[in-house]
Amino acid sequence: MRKTVLYIAMSLDGFIADENSNIDWLVGDNENMSNYLSFSTSVDTVIMGHKTYFQVTNELSPNNWPYPNMHAYIITHKNYNNNIENITFYNKSLSFLLNSLKEKEGKDIWICGGASIVNQLIKENQIDQYRISIIPTILGNGIKLFYNDNTKINLKLESSEINNGIIELIYNKK
Amino acid sequence: MRKTVLYIAMSLDGFIADENSNIDWLVGDNENMSNYLSFSTSVDTVIMGHKTYFQVTNELSPNNWPYPNMHAYIITHKNYNNNIENITFYNKSLSFLLNSLKEKEGKDIWICGGASIVNQLIKENQIDQYRISIIPTILGNGIKLFYNDNTKINLKLESSEINNGIIELIYNKK
Repeated sequence: MRKTVLYIAMSLDGFIADENSNIDWLVGDNENMSNYLSFSTSVDTVIMGHKTYFQVTNELSPNNWPYPNMHAYIITHKNYNNNIENITFYNKSLSFLLNSLKEKEGKDIWICGGASIVNQLIKENQIDQYRISIIPTILGNGIKLFYNDNTKINLKLESSEINNGIIELIYNKK
Repeated sequence: MRKTVLYIAMSLDGFIADENSNIDWLVGDNENMSNYLSFSTSVDTVIMGHKTYFQVTNELSPNNWPYPNMHAYIITHKNYNNNIENITFYNKSLSFLLNSLKEKEGKDIWICGGASIVNQLIKENQIDQYRISIIPTILGNGIKLFYNDNTKINLKLESSEINNGIIELIYNKK
Protein backbone atom coordinates (compact mmCIF):
# COMPACT_ATOMS: atom_id res chain seq x y z
CA MET A 1 0.00 0.00 0.00
CA ARG A 2 1.18 3.52 -0.67
CA LYS A 3 2.64 5.30 2.34
CA THR A 4 2.31 8.80 3.74
CA VAL A 5 5.85 10.13 4.06
CA LEU A 6 6.94 13.18 6.00
CA TYR A 7 9.95 14.35 4.00
CA ILE A 8 11.41 17.45 5.57
CA ALA A 9 14.60 19.07 6.84
CA MET A 10 15.14 20.45 10.32
CA SER A 11 18.02 21.96 12.26
CA LEU A 12 19.64 19.84 14.99
CA ASP A 13 17.50 21.75 17.48
CA GLY A 14 14.31 20.95 15.59
CA PHE A 15 13.48 24.05 13.55
CA ILE A 16 12.14 23.96 9.99
CA ALA A 17 12.37 27.71 9.45
CA ASP A 18 13.75 30.68 11.29
CA GLU A 19 11.66 33.23 13.20
CA ASN A 20 10.75 35.06 9.99
CA SER A 21 9.81 31.82 8.18
CA ASN A 22 13.04 32.00 6.19
CA ILE A 23 14.78 28.83 5.09
CA ASP A 24 17.98 30.42 3.73
CA TRP A 25 20.01 28.53 6.34
CA LEU A 26 18.71 25.26 4.82
CA VAL A 27 20.20 25.77 1.40
CA GLY A 28 23.52 26.97 0.02
CA ASP A 29 26.28 24.80 1.42
CA ASN A 30 23.66 22.41 2.65
CA GLU A 31 21.96 21.73 -0.64
CA ASN A 32 21.04 18.14 -1.12
CA MET A 33 19.56 17.81 -4.59
CA SER A 34 20.45 14.19 -5.28
CA ASN A 35 18.54 13.04 -2.21
CA TYR A 36 15.53 15.10 -3.27
CA LEU A 37 15.57 13.84 -6.86
CA SER A 38 15.62 10.26 -5.67
CA PHE A 39 12.80 10.91 -3.17
CA SER A 40 10.65 12.81 -5.66
CA THR A 41 10.43 9.80 -7.98
CA SER A 42 8.87 7.77 -5.15
CA VAL A 43 5.83 10.05 -4.73
CA ASP A 44 3.03 11.26 -7.00
CA THR A 45 1.05 13.31 -4.49
CA VAL A 46 2.06 16.17 -2.22
CA ILE A 47 0.08 17.58 0.70
CA MET A 48 0.77 21.05 2.10
CA GLY A 49 -0.91 23.74 4.15
CA HIS A 50 -2.01 26.99 2.58
CA LYS A 51 0.76 28.99 4.31
CA THR A 52 3.39 26.72 2.78
CA TYR A 53 1.64 27.00 -0.60
CA PHE A 54 1.60 30.78 -0.28
CA GLN A 55 5.28 30.83 0.61
CA VAL A 56 6.20 28.56 -2.32
CA THR A 57 4.20 30.51 -4.91
CA ASN A 58 5.03 34.00 -3.63
CA GLU A 59 8.52 33.79 -2.22
CA LEU A 60 10.43 30.58 -2.81
CA SER A 61 9.55 29.81 -6.40
CA PRO A 62 7.11 32.41 -7.79
CA ASN A 63 7.84 31.70 -11.46
CA ASN A 64 8.05 27.96 -11.41
CA TRP A 65 5.71 25.57 -9.61
CA PRO A 66 8.22 23.08 -8.16
CA TYR A 67 5.96 20.01 -8.04
CA PRO A 68 5.05 19.49 -11.73
CA ASN A 69 4.89 15.71 -11.67
CA MET A 70 2.69 15.38 -8.62
CA HIS A 71 -0.89 16.09 -7.70
CA ALA A 72 -0.87 18.73 -4.96
CA TYR A 73 -3.54 19.08 -2.27
CA ILE A 74 -3.49 22.45 -0.54
CA ILE A 75 -5.19 22.20 2.85
CA THR A 76 -7.15 25.34 3.59
CA HIS A 77 -10.19 26.54 5.50
CA LYS A 78 -11.24 28.84 2.68
CA ASN A 79 -13.48 28.03 -0.26
CA TYR A 80 -11.64 27.95 -3.55
CA ASN A 81 -13.37 27.46 -6.86
CA ASN A 82 -10.33 28.02 -8.98
CA ASN A 83 -8.62 24.67 -8.86
CA ILE A 84 -5.57 24.65 -11.10
CA GLU A 85 -4.33 21.73 -13.14
CA ASN A 86 -2.80 19.20 -10.74
CA ILE A 87 -3.60 21.40 -7.73
CA THR A 88 -6.66 20.84 -5.55
CA PHE A 89 -7.62 23.26 -2.79
CA TYR A 90 -9.12 21.11 -0.06
CA ASN A 91 -11.12 22.34 2.94
CA LYS A 92 -12.59 19.12 4.36
CA SER A 93 -11.10 16.54 6.74
CA LEU A 94 -7.40 15.92 6.13
CA SER A 95 -7.68 12.52 7.72
CA PHE A 96 -10.50 11.60 5.32
CA LEU A 97 -8.44 12.84 2.36
CA LEU A 98 -5.47 10.68 3.33
CA ASN A 99 -7.58 7.60 3.88
CA SER A 100 -9.23 7.96 0.48
CA LEU A 101 -5.92 8.60 -1.26
CA LYS A 102 -4.43 5.52 0.37
CA GLU A 103 -7.27 3.37 -0.91
CA LYS A 104 -6.32 4.28 -4.47
CA GLU A 105 -3.39 2.87 -6.40
CA GLY A 106 -0.39 5.13 -6.67
CA LYS A 107 3.03 6.10 -5.48
CA ASP A 108 3.68 7.41 -1.97
CA ILE A 109 2.12 10.58 -0.58
CA TRP A 110 4.46 13.34 0.49
CA ILE A 111 3.53 15.27 3.62
CA CYS A 112 5.40 18.46 2.85
CA GLY A 113 4.41 20.73 5.76
CA GLY A 114 4.08 23.08 7.42
CA ALA A 115 4.25 22.28 11.10
CA SER A 116 0.50 22.63 11.68
CA ILE A 117 -0.37 19.93 9.11
CA VAL A 118 2.48 17.72 10.32
CA ASN A 119 1.46 17.88 13.98
CA GLN A 120 -2.18 17.24 13.20
CA LEU A 121 -1.10 14.06 11.42
CA ILE A 122 1.32 13.03 14.17
CA LYS A 123 -1.50 13.37 16.70
CA GLU A 124 -3.62 11.05 14.53
CA ASN A 125 -0.64 8.72 13.90
CA GLN A 126 -1.26 9.13 10.17
CA ILE A 127 2.38 9.36 9.09
CA ASP A 128 3.76 6.01 7.94
CA GLN A 129 7.33 7.10 7.32
CA TYR A 130 9.45 9.95 8.67
CA ARG A 131 12.34 11.02 6.42
CA ILE A 132 14.03 13.81 8.31
CA SER A 133 17.20 15.48 7.10
CA ILE A 134 19.18 17.03 9.91
CA ILE A 135 20.90 20.27 8.94
CA PRO A 136 24.18 20.61 10.91
CA THR A 137 23.12 23.82 12.61
CA ILE A 138 21.77 24.82 16.00
CA LEU A 139 19.42 27.54 14.82
CA GLY A 140 18.45 28.82 18.28
CA ASN A 141 14.98 29.99 17.37
CA GLY A 142 12.25 29.66 14.75
CA ILE A 143 9.36 27.45 13.74
CA LYS A 144 9.49 24.03 15.40
CA LEU A 145 8.84 20.86 13.43
CA PHE A 146 7.36 19.06 16.43
CA TYR A 147 4.84 20.72 18.73
CA ASN A 148 4.91 19.83 22.43
CA ASP A 149 1.38 18.52 22.55
CA ASN A 150 1.56 15.17 20.85
CA THR A 151 1.04 11.69 22.08
CA LYS A 152 4.03 9.37 22.21
CA ILE A 153 4.86 7.52 18.99
CA ASN A 154 7.40 4.73 18.79
CA LEU A 155 9.36 4.50 15.56
CA LYS A 156 11.78 2.07 13.99
CA LEU A 157 14.96 3.39 12.40
CA GLU A 158 15.14 1.94 8.88
CA SER A 159 18.26 3.60 7.54
CA SER A 160 20.33 6.74 7.36
CA GLU A 161 22.29 8.42 4.61
CA ILE A 162 24.85 11.21 4.71
CA ASN A 163 25.11 13.68 1.82
CA ASN A 164 27.23 16.79 2.02
CA GLY A 165 27.21 16.94 5.84
CA ILE A 166 23.45 16.43 6.10
CA ILE A 167 22.20 13.17 7.54
CA GLU A 168 18.82 11.84 6.52
CA LEU A 169 17.12 9.59 9.08
CA ILE A 170 14.38 7.29 7.84
CA TYR A 171 11.95 5.94 10.44
CA ASN A 172 8.86 3.81 9.97
CA LYS A 173 5.88 3.77 12.28
CA LYS A 174 6.18 0.73 14.55
CA MET B 1 43.80 19.84 23.43
CA ARG B 2 41.12 18.09 25.44
CA LYS B 3 37.58 18.75 24.23
CA THR B 4 34.30 19.50 25.97
CA VAL B 5 31.83 16.89 24.72
CA LEU B 6 28.07 16.99 25.11
CA TYR B 7 27.19 13.29 25.24
CA ILE B 8 23.47 12.86 25.66
CA ALA B 9 20.38 11.11 24.29
CA MET B 10 17.24 12.81 23.08
CA SER B 11 13.98 11.75 21.47
CA LEU B 12 13.47 12.56 17.78
CA ASP B 13 11.44 15.58 18.91
CA GLY B 14 14.27 16.82 21.14
CA PHE B 15 13.36 15.76 24.68
CA ILE B 16 15.90 14.45 27.21
CA ALA B 17 13.30 13.49 29.81
CA ASP B 18 9.54 13.32 30.03
CA GLU B 19 7.35 15.82 31.86
CA ASN B 20 8.10 14.20 35.22
CA SER B 21 11.86 14.12 34.56
CA ASN B 22 11.64 10.38 33.94
CA ILE B 23 13.97 8.73 31.47
CA ASP B 24 12.38 5.25 31.44
CA TRP B 25 11.61 5.66 27.72
CA LEU B 26 15.38 6.01 27.11
CA VAL B 27 16.35 2.61 28.41
CA GLY B 28 15.02 -0.93 28.07
CA ASP B 29 14.89 -1.84 24.42
CA ASN B 30 16.91 1.23 23.66
CA GLU B 31 19.88 0.43 25.87
CA ASN B 32 23.16 1.24 24.26
CA MET B 33 25.87 0.09 26.65
CA SER B 34 28.64 -0.61 24.14
CA ASN B 35 28.49 2.95 22.86
CA TYR B 36 28.64 4.28 26.43
CA LEU B 37 31.54 2.06 27.43
CA SER B 38 33.55 3.22 24.46
CA PHE B 39 32.71 6.88 25.14
CA SER B 40 33.45 6.67 28.87
CA THR B 41 37.06 5.66 28.23
CA SER B 42 37.60 8.91 26.29
CA VAL B 43 36.76 11.20 29.24
CA ASP B 44 38.14 11.68 32.77
CA THR B 45 35.94 14.56 33.89
CA VAL B 46 32.17 14.94 34.02
CA ILE B 47 30.22 18.17 34.52
CA MET B 48 26.61 18.16 35.67
CA GLY B 49 24.06 20.45 37.28
CA HIS B 50 22.89 19.89 40.84
CA LYS B 51 19.44 18.69 39.70
CA THR B 52 21.02 15.99 37.57
CA TYR B 53 23.31 15.07 40.49
CA PHE B 54 20.32 14.87 42.81
CA GLN B 55 18.45 12.67 40.33
CA VAL B 56 21.42 10.34 39.86
CA THR B 57 22.12 9.93 43.58
CA ASN B 58 18.50 9.73 44.74
CA GLU B 59 16.61 8.06 41.94
CA LEU B 60 18.65 6.61 39.09
CA SER B 61 21.53 5.01 40.95
CA PRO B 62 21.24 5.64 44.72
CA ASN B 63 23.53 2.78 45.76
CA ASN B 64 26.23 3.10 43.16
CA TRP B 65 27.89 6.30 41.98
CA PRO B 66 28.03 5.65 38.22
CA TYR B 67 31.09 7.78 37.39
CA PRO B 68 33.83 6.12 39.48
CA ASN B 69 36.70 6.72 37.07
CA MET B 70 36.06 10.41 36.47
CA HIS B 71 36.33 13.58 38.45
CA ALA B 72 32.83 15.06 38.73
CA TYR B 73 32.07 18.78 39.05
CA ILE B 74 28.56 19.47 40.32
CA ILE B 75 27.50 22.98 39.33
CA THR B 76 25.43 24.58 42.07
CA HIS B 77 24.62 27.97 43.54
CA LYS B 78 24.83 26.68 47.09
CA ASN B 79 27.88 26.54 49.33
CA TYR B 80 29.08 23.02 49.98
CA ASN B 81 31.91 22.21 52.34
CA ASN B 82 31.54 18.48 52.09
CA ASN B 83 33.36 17.65 48.90
CA ILE B 84 33.50 13.90 48.38
CA GLU B 85 36.37 11.97 46.85
CA ASN B 86 36.38 12.70 43.13
CA ILE B 87 33.36 14.99 43.42
CA THR B 88 33.68 18.77 43.61
CA PHE B 89 30.70 21.02 44.28
CA TYR B 90 31.35 24.18 42.29
CA ASN B 91 29.51 27.49 42.65
CA LYS B 92 31.67 29.89 40.62
CA SER B 93 31.74 30.61 36.87
CA LEU B 94 31.18 27.50 34.75
CA SER B 95 32.97 29.15 31.86
CA PHE B 96 36.01 29.81 34.06
CA LEU B 97 35.98 26.19 35.27
CA LEU B 98 35.97 24.84 31.72
CA ASN B 99 38.74 27.15 30.60
CA SER B 100 40.96 26.13 33.50
CA LEU B 101 40.22 22.43 32.99
CA LYS B 102 41.08 22.74 29.30
CA GLU B 103 44.44 24.30 30.13
CA LYS B 104 45.38 21.16 32.07
CA GLU B 105 46.43 17.86 30.52
CA GLY B 106 43.79 15.16 30.48
CA LYS B 107 41.16 13.26 28.61
CA ASP B 108 38.02 14.92 27.27
CA ILE B 109 35.43 16.62 29.49
CA TRP B 110 31.92 15.23 29.44
CA ILE B 111 29.08 17.74 29.59
CA CYS B 112 26.43 15.48 31.03
CA GLY B 113 23.48 17.86 31.57
CA GLY B 114 20.92 18.94 32.45
CA ALA B 115 19.43 21.29 29.90
CA SER B 116 20.22 24.42 31.90
CA ILE B 117 23.98 23.72 31.95
CA VAL B 118 23.92 22.62 28.30
CA ASN B 119 22.16 25.75 27.06
CA GLN B 120 24.39 28.06 29.06
CA LEU B 121 27.37 26.44 27.32
CA ILE B 122 25.73 26.54 23.87
CA LYS B 123 25.13 30.27 24.33
CA GLU B 124 28.81 30.72 25.11
CA ASN B 125 29.82 28.34 22.28
CA GLN B 126 31.80 26.33 24.82
CA ILE B 127 30.90 22.86 23.52
CA ASP B 128 33.53 21.46 21.18
CA GLN B 129 31.75 18.25 20.24
CA TYR B 130 28.10 17.22 20.23
CA ARG B 131 27.49 13.45 20.49
CA ILE B 132 23.73 13.09 20.41
CA SER B 133 21.99 9.73 20.37
CA ILE B 134 18.54 9.92 18.83
CA ILE B 135 16.02 7.63 20.51
CA PRO B 136 13.48 6.42 17.90
CA THR B 137 10.53 7.95 19.70
CA ILE B 138 8.40 11.05 19.33
CA LEU B 139 7.87 11.74 23.02
CA GLY B 140 5.37 14.58 22.59
CA ASN B 141 6.27 16.46 25.74
CA GLY B 142 8.94 16.83 28.40
CA ILE B 143 12.21 18.58 29.07
CA LYS B 144 13.83 19.95 25.90
CA LEU B 145 17.52 19.52 25.22
CA PHE B 146 17.75 22.80 23.31
CA TYR B 147 16.17 25.99 24.59
CA ASN B 148 14.78 28.46 22.05
CA ASP B 149 16.99 31.33 23.09
CA ASN B 150 20.35 30.47 21.66
CA THR B 151 22.47 32.06 19.04
CA LYS B 152 23.06 30.18 15.81
CA ILE B 153 25.90 27.66 15.83
CA ASN B 154 27.17 25.94 12.70
CA LEU B 155 28.41 22.40 13.14
CA LYS B 156 30.20 19.83 11.03
CA LEU B 157 28.94 16.25 10.96
CA GLU B 158 31.90 14.00 11.75
CA SER B 159 30.25 10.59 11.80
CA SER B 160 27.23 8.56 12.80
CA GLU B 161 26.77 5.11 14.25
CA ILE B 162 23.70 2.94 14.61
CA ASN B 163 23.33 0.58 17.58
CA ASN B 164 20.12 -1.24 18.33
CA GLY B 165 17.91 1.25 16.46
CA ILE B 166 19.53 4.30 18.06
CA ILE B 167 21.64 6.55 15.88
CA GLU B 168 24.43 8.57 17.41
CA LEU B 169 25.33 11.76 15.55
CA ILE B 170 28.75 13.29 16.21
CA TYR B 171 29.22 16.95 15.31
CA ASN B 172 32.21 19.22 15.87
CA LYS B 173 32.03 22.95 16.29
CA LYS B 174 32.97 24.54 12.95
